[in-house]
Order: sequence, then C-alpha cells, then structure tokens
Amino acid sequence: MHTTTRIAEVDRATELAGDAFAATVGASDDTRAGWLRAIADALDAHVDDLVALADGETALGAARLTGEVARTTGQLRLFAAVLADGGYLEAIIDHAAPGRPDLRRMLRPLGPVAVYAASNFPFAFSVAGGDTASALAVGCPVVVKAHPGHPETSRRTAALVTEALAAAGAPVGAFGLVEGFEAGLALIDHPAITAAAFTGSVAGGRALFDRAAARPAPIPFFGELGSINPVVVTEAADAVRGAELAAGLAASFQLGVGQFCTKPGLVFVPEGSVLEAALPAQVGRAPHRLLTEAIARGFRAGLEHLAGVPGAALVAGTVSEPAAGPEPLVYAVDLATFTDPAFTATLTTEVFGPVTLLVRYPDAATLVGALAALEGSLTATVHAEPDEDVTALSAVLADRVGRLLFGGWPTGVAVTWSQQHGGPWPATTSQHTSVGATAVRRFQRPIVYQDAPEAVLPAALREDNPLGIPRRVDGVQVR
Amino acid sequence: MHTTTRIAEVDRATELAGDAFAATVGASDDTRAGWLRAIADALDAHVDDLVALADGETALGAARLTGEVARTTGQLRLFAAVLADGGYLEAIIDHAAPGRPDLRRMLRPLGPVAVYAASNFPFAFSVAGGDTASALAVGCPVVVKAHPGHPETSRRTAALVTEALAAAGAPVGAFGLVEGFEAGLALIDHPAITAAAFTGSVAGGRALFDRAAARPAPIPFFGELGSINPVVVTEAADAVRGAELAAGLAASFQLGVGQFCTKPGLVFVPEGSVLEAALPAQVGRAPHRLLTEAIARGFRAGLEHLAGVPGAALVAGTVSEPAAGPEPLVYAVDLATFTDPAFTATLTTEVFGPVTLLVRYPDAATLVGALAALEGSLTATVHAEPDEDVTALSAVLADRVGRLLFGGWPTGVAVTWSQQHGGPWPATTSQHTSVGATAVRRFQRPIVYQDAPEAVLPAALREDNPLGIPRRVDGVQVR
Repeated sequence: MHTTTRIAEVDRATELAGDAFAATVGASDDTRAGWLRAIADALDAHVDDLVALADGETALGAARLTGEVARTTGQLRLFAAVLADGGYLEAIIDHAAPGRPDLRRMLRPLGPVAVYAASNFPFAFSVAGGDTASALAVGCPVVVKAHPGHPETSRRTAALVTEALAAAGAPVGAFGLVEGFEAGLALIDHPAITAAAFTGSVAGGRALFDRAAARPAPIPFFGELGSINPVVVTEAADAVRGAELAAGLAASFQLGVGQFCTKPGLVFVPEGSVLEAALPAQVGRAPHRLLTEAIARGFRAGLEHLAGVPGAALVAGTVSEPAAGPEPLVYAVDLATFTDPAFTATLTTEVFGPVTLLVRYPDAATLVGALAALEGSLTATVHAEPDEDVTALSAVLADRVGRLLFGGWPTGVAVTWSQQHGGPWPATTSQHTSVGATAVRRFQRPIVYQDAPEAVLPAALREDNPLGIPRRVDGVQVR
Repeated sequence: MHTTTRIAEVDRATELAGDAFAATVGASDDTRAGWLRAIADALDAHVDDLVALADGETALGAARLTGEVARTTGQLRLFAAVLADGGYLEAIIDHAAPGRPDLRRMLRPLGPVAVYAASNFPFAFSVAGGDTASALAVGCPVVVKAHPGHPETSRRTAALVTEALAAAGAPVGAFGLVEGFEAGLALIDHPAITAAAFTGSVAGGRALFDRAAARPAPIPFFGELGSINPVVVTEAADAVRGAELAAGLAASFQLGVGQFCTKPGLVFVPEGSVLEAALPAQVGRAPHRLLTEAIARGFRAGLEHLAGVPGAALVAGTVSEPAAGPEPLVYAVDLATFTDPAFTATLTTEVFGPVTLLVRYPDAATLVGALAALEGSLTATVHAEPDEDVTALSAVLADRVGRLLFGGWPTGVAVTWSQQHGGPWPATTSQHTSVGATAVRRFQRPIVYQDAPEAVLPAALREDNPLGIPRRVDGVQVR
C-alpha cells in the first residue's frame, strides 16, 4: 500500500477515535466491561484460526500460541473485573469544612491512545493485548499500529475486535488498526492522540519517545524497551543445586527462541561453578527460526559484540549459520572484565535471541559492589539457600528493577492485580506497569470537582456511592 | 558567584543526594514523618524572620506571607499523615495459586529529585514547598534550584530545613540548595537525578522538559506551567447576580497582583452582561509591584498582544507605566473574534499579572461549541443557577482541566487528600497533582517481590501486615 494512503488511514482512524472519545468517556463501567468480554469471547471462539495464522507468520508453535490466546482473553476479563471493583478510579472525597470547599477527585480517561504492537507476542502484546485492553477498559479509544512481523494475524484479530465491539454497542472509532512504518510516525504526531504505549527495542522505543516528547503538546509515552534481567546465583545455591539451576536457566533463556523481554541475559555465578559445568548439556538446537529477519540480523550483530570482548569464552553452543534455527549460545566472562568500563556497556546490552552471558565472580562482597554497574531491568532474580542473608544483595537489585524474584526464572509474567512489568530506564520509560491490573493507570488522569451539584457528578463521586466502590472520605478509606 | 563554582555545587549536592538515597529509601514511615514535622516546626518557629525577608524580596505583604508559611507547614504535616496511613504505598498481595507465584507489589521512591522553585509562592511552592515535602515524604532526597526572585528567603529557609533534618537524624544530602540559571541546567542533566518538579512559565518549563527528555536516560519531568483558567457565567447567573460575580472576579484576578497560576484569565459572559457593566467599579490600583522585573516585562508584552487583537476593548483600568504597581486591566472581545483561528492562540495565552479577558457570547449553544478551542488548564469554573442543566458545559470543560469548580473562584487551592492541581498540556506535563496528598505518586515507582522470603520483604508487604496499612489481598481491598 502507498505511504500516502497509509497516512490517510492514520488521520481517519485517529479522527474517528477522537469522535468516539465523547462516547467512551461517558460509558459506564458495566458497559466497558461488556466490550472487553465481547472481545475475549470473539477471540476464544476463533482460537484455531488465529493460532494457525500466527504460527505461519511467527513460527512460535501451536501450543505456545494457543496458550497465548488464553492469556490474552484472560487479561481482557481481568480488566473487566478491575472495572467492577472500582478501586481503579481512586475516588477521594473531602467534604466542605471551614475555609475549604467540597472536593471530589477521581481518575478519568486521557483520550485516544496509540498502541505499538510487539513482534514476540502476536496476541498478548499485540492488537488485542494488554495495552489495548487497559486503554479500552478505562474509556480510551485505541489506534493500534500493527507489527509487520505478523500482518495477517493482526488484521484478523482487528476484524474480530471491530466486529465484537460493534455488536456490543461500542462507538465507531473506539478501535482502529494502521500499518506501516510511516503510519507509525504519523500516529505519534497526531494531535488527537493523548498517550502512547509501546513494546519493542530500545532504539525503536527511544525514537518514538523522542517524537512524543517533541510534539507541540507533548504526550506520555509508555515504552517497554530492553532488559538484561540479571540473575545472581550464590555460592551456596550453586553448591547445593548447580545442575538443577543449569537446567532451569537453559529452559528460560531458550524459551521462545530467546525472544522474551524477560529472558535472563546476564547470570552471575561463582568462579568454577557447578552451573557452568552443567550448562552445555542443557543447550540444544532451537526448535524454529527467529521471528523476523530484522531480529535475526540484530541477534548476529549482538553476538559479534559479545564475542569481541577480550576473554569472552563460548561455553555452550557453536556459532553457525543455521538453516532451520539459530544455535543457542552461552558466553562467559570474569567479573573483572564485566566491571571494566570499556566493556560494561557491551556486556549489559540486551541481545534479543537465544544467548545468555555468565559472569564469574570471585566472592559475594565483590559481586554486590559490581552490581552497581547495572542499569534498569524489568526483573532480577536471586538464587540463594534459605539460611543465607540476601538483604544487601536484594537492596542493590531493588534499586534497579521492577520485579525481584527469589527462586524461579523471570520468563513468564503472571497477569494479576499486583504484577509489575516495568523498571527503570532502559527497561521502560514509565512509572507504571504494562501487565496486570494497575496497567490502566497509564491512561488516566485525575480531575477534582469543587462544590459540584449532584446532577453533574459522575456516579463514582455521588454522596450515596451508587456504584459501591472503595473511596477515601475525609481522609479515611471506606468501602 | 562564578558559574563554575555553582556547577560544582550542583555536582556536590547531587552526589550527596545520591549517597543519601541509600538511607532515605530504607528509613521507616515514622522516621520520614518525623523529618517533615521537624521542618514544619522549624519554619513555624521562625515565621516572623521568614516573612520579613520574603516581604522585602517579593512585596507580597506580611498578611499573605504569614498565611503562606502556615499553608506550607500544614502541607508538611499533611504528608506526615499520609505516611502514617500507608495507603500511598499501594500495596497489593496475590498469594501463590496453581501455576502462579506469590507476588507482592508496593511503591518505592525513585531516587534524588530536582525541585525548581516558583517565583510567586516564596514558601508554598519554593524551598520547603509541596514538591520538596512530597519527595522527602516518600524517601527521595531533594536538590532545590532556588528562584532568583527571593534568594535570601530561599537561603534562610534552606538553612532551617538543613538544620531541622540534621537534628532529626536525616542523612547528609537528603536536602540541598543550588542557585543560578546554569546550575538549574546542570541539575536536570545530572545522571543521579531521577525526576524533576517545576512550577513556572510555559517557556521555562518546556525548556527543562525538553532537556529531561533528551538525557541519555530520560527522567520524568513534572511541570506546572501556564493556565488560562476559563470561567463561564450563564445568562441566568448573570441576570440574578452579575454585580456580585463582578466583585468576585475582580477580587480573584487581582489577588497577589494577578500572579497566581489559578488566576481566572478568560471569562465567558453573555453579551451586554451585568457583570461587565459592574466590573470597572471593582478594579483598583494594585497594592504593590510585580514580583520581578522579568514578570513585569512579560506582563507588558502580554498586554500589547491582547491590545493588538482587532476589536479588543479595554473595559476597566488604563494602561500606564505606574511607579508603585501595575494598573489592573480588563479587556473584552466578542466570541467571533475569540474563535477566529487568527486570534485564538493570542487570546488563550496566559498573561501573568493583573489582567483578565471577557469573551462576550451570544447564546449558550454557540458558547459550548466555542469552548472546544480551549487547551488544557489547571481549572475551569461554572457560574450557573441551581435549576440550570450544565451537563454539556461540564463535559466539555472536564475534558480540558484538572479542577472543575461550580461557583467560587479558582484562586486558592486547598491542601487536602483529594486536591488536584494539574491539567492537560500546557497546564502541566503530568498525570498527577502538585498539591494535595496524591502529589507523592510523582516520585514513586512500583516494585513487585516474587516468592520473597519474609526476611527480605519490606514491612508493608509482610504477611501479618505489621504497619496495619490498607492493602489489596487476592483481589480484595482489606484494612
């Protein structure tokens, strides 16, 4: 399709979204919850078609993709439950007092939201994924920029979403899809767009972030970018269960051919670890190709950077040009190399694909000091024995991440009320999560009504609390 | 002082703040509440000195300044109460379930915060004002960039804050003060700074916002910039109490010599209104000069822009070059001029100082359509009679502001749990407030602990809830 046509589509979708906002901002929680459930039902009803399309485009396999559709529809239904609860409105009422008016505050939707779909989750972080679901949930129309890695899956999903929303009575323009690189730029620039959400690379996210900030009227940009996801294995944990940890690490870093933003990319192990010795036996050929040729190019470039660091040893896998899929790889360096300012940036840059880096540390105290070199990540993981004191280790990691795991592996992000998927730069550009119930806060802003007549007040703020939602009244939380 | 010395001071204050964070992030709520109360007590104990200094530098008058110190110390004590409540931590616990780990989420401080003080509130939005109080409250060290309009007041306040914090056991570096334009730029660029808060002009705020966004690691910039604060007077309200409204408007737009970010700068009145006829008698000479020569220059330039719009009529006051204080002024235009794209931008640009603009509308329906031309503001105000339906009017204004008043005037911002001081661009760059209890959210980010041992968990997330704070547990809010 011609670029001019695609930019005309951005204008059309975005203007329709602007018009739709007048209806979505006023729709009740029940109504919007109905929209989300209608989308979920439509996707579930067409799961086989969707999975077949997506497997053809991404090679991620039917089992994984079927699970991902379920995760996506479960996510839509969780946001419907969030609306029913009403806590997401953060309602606060201060009755009039001497010298002070009656003030009633709640959150309201920002307006039309641009969503940039990811390559690696063709459902859960794509057209009807968490960003779309959380924006629609709170009453923001959504215009999705499709990811070029799965265009047919995107179009089919969009058609199902559009049909389901229409049948559920949502306004025209509540949802739209645009395609193409230039369309993505036009979308972030469009005056009617009030916020953007993005999942992808640091370079792509930074380019859109810069553009969002440079607008005549800047808008918030919620980018989930890159993450190295450090893992620390203590000497005691390695001694007790190094082989088991090797198996867990191998499974986690190879999952989805290493194409997870939560892939453990940096693993601190004791020098001479059981884990390192056991790892090669756990690393096998990838079951399928990388998602796109661009990702494959990036993977090869990342490997060259890693291999170019003096002393970087290949401890599992062999570098090759495979026909069917990339060879999963494990490199290792010493802590002294890691902390050398000449190499730290290279060694802490995410390489998207099936590779991880072991960093061999001489002792725990030296390790904790070295962790200060880490930038922000989505996650950090500690493997320790129950009787160890990991307070200092936890404190230094908590400063740098959004999710701190004790045991387990960071791949796999449960969609719950408390989940936090987001961390300090460069992991995200956000003080919020893109997964879990509180993801809706990205697309809301507060408003306070001063001395408003009951007839004007939204239901959430009326004196008799007709919605029965949790509120803070005169300083005290009540339900 | 030389610029190089001042920039060295930025490095020193910011590095101390970075070091202090290790202590402030771990300090208990009780401890930090004690710091805030110690600052409040110190300011209250020196109110006479502080007011005398500030009156000499700002000419705002002892009565107003004494009230402002009380507001400032009340604000510090409100944040201490917010900490005691614990709701600000937004604690959420999801116990482990089949296929899902134990997840415990709370908010934690970002790190060192840069605060840019305002000219027009030498206490409440300056060295120990709301930005400093809310950042310190949640455990963020603060480096304040003093406003050049009241340097001695800033230094004296900073000395009191520093002394009070030291006596209360806060770490060195929890608070610092820097001065000078170049120091302000160096501060926003410093890698240890994790967020910034600003109250001031659109131009100044935009320059700092752009710089915060352009950093290698971008940081959130919470700017409270300009606001026109539209007011709508219905035909019925004008007929019933136009003269009373004229008196209220005159008092509000002249308050503090028009130097409030909530000054009503744009007032929609019926053609031939009682209000307009009654207004000239209410407008008198300003009691004192504008805050700074820069503000006086901006005021004169703004008046020239207004007076240059064809048909703009001066309806109260006379343009002069007063020796003691500026002449408060009221201009008026017709709605057709206001909606003319050639003039809307000029007529909706804030002029900081004692001037307001009446826009005469022919009928209510035409007015509601014209309000779509408004950009974001901190506030909007509706003056209507009790039996009028103001639903449509309220809806169009609610899309554009953070505080919507029914009756009353926007100057005066109560410091409460529910207050919202912030609105869509250009009013702020934020989805948060800079006044009221929820202002703390600007300086926090979420973290979730996965399968963490009790010994590592912060008190807020321990199973037995030792702090007794409100939490959401397995989807249900409990206290």
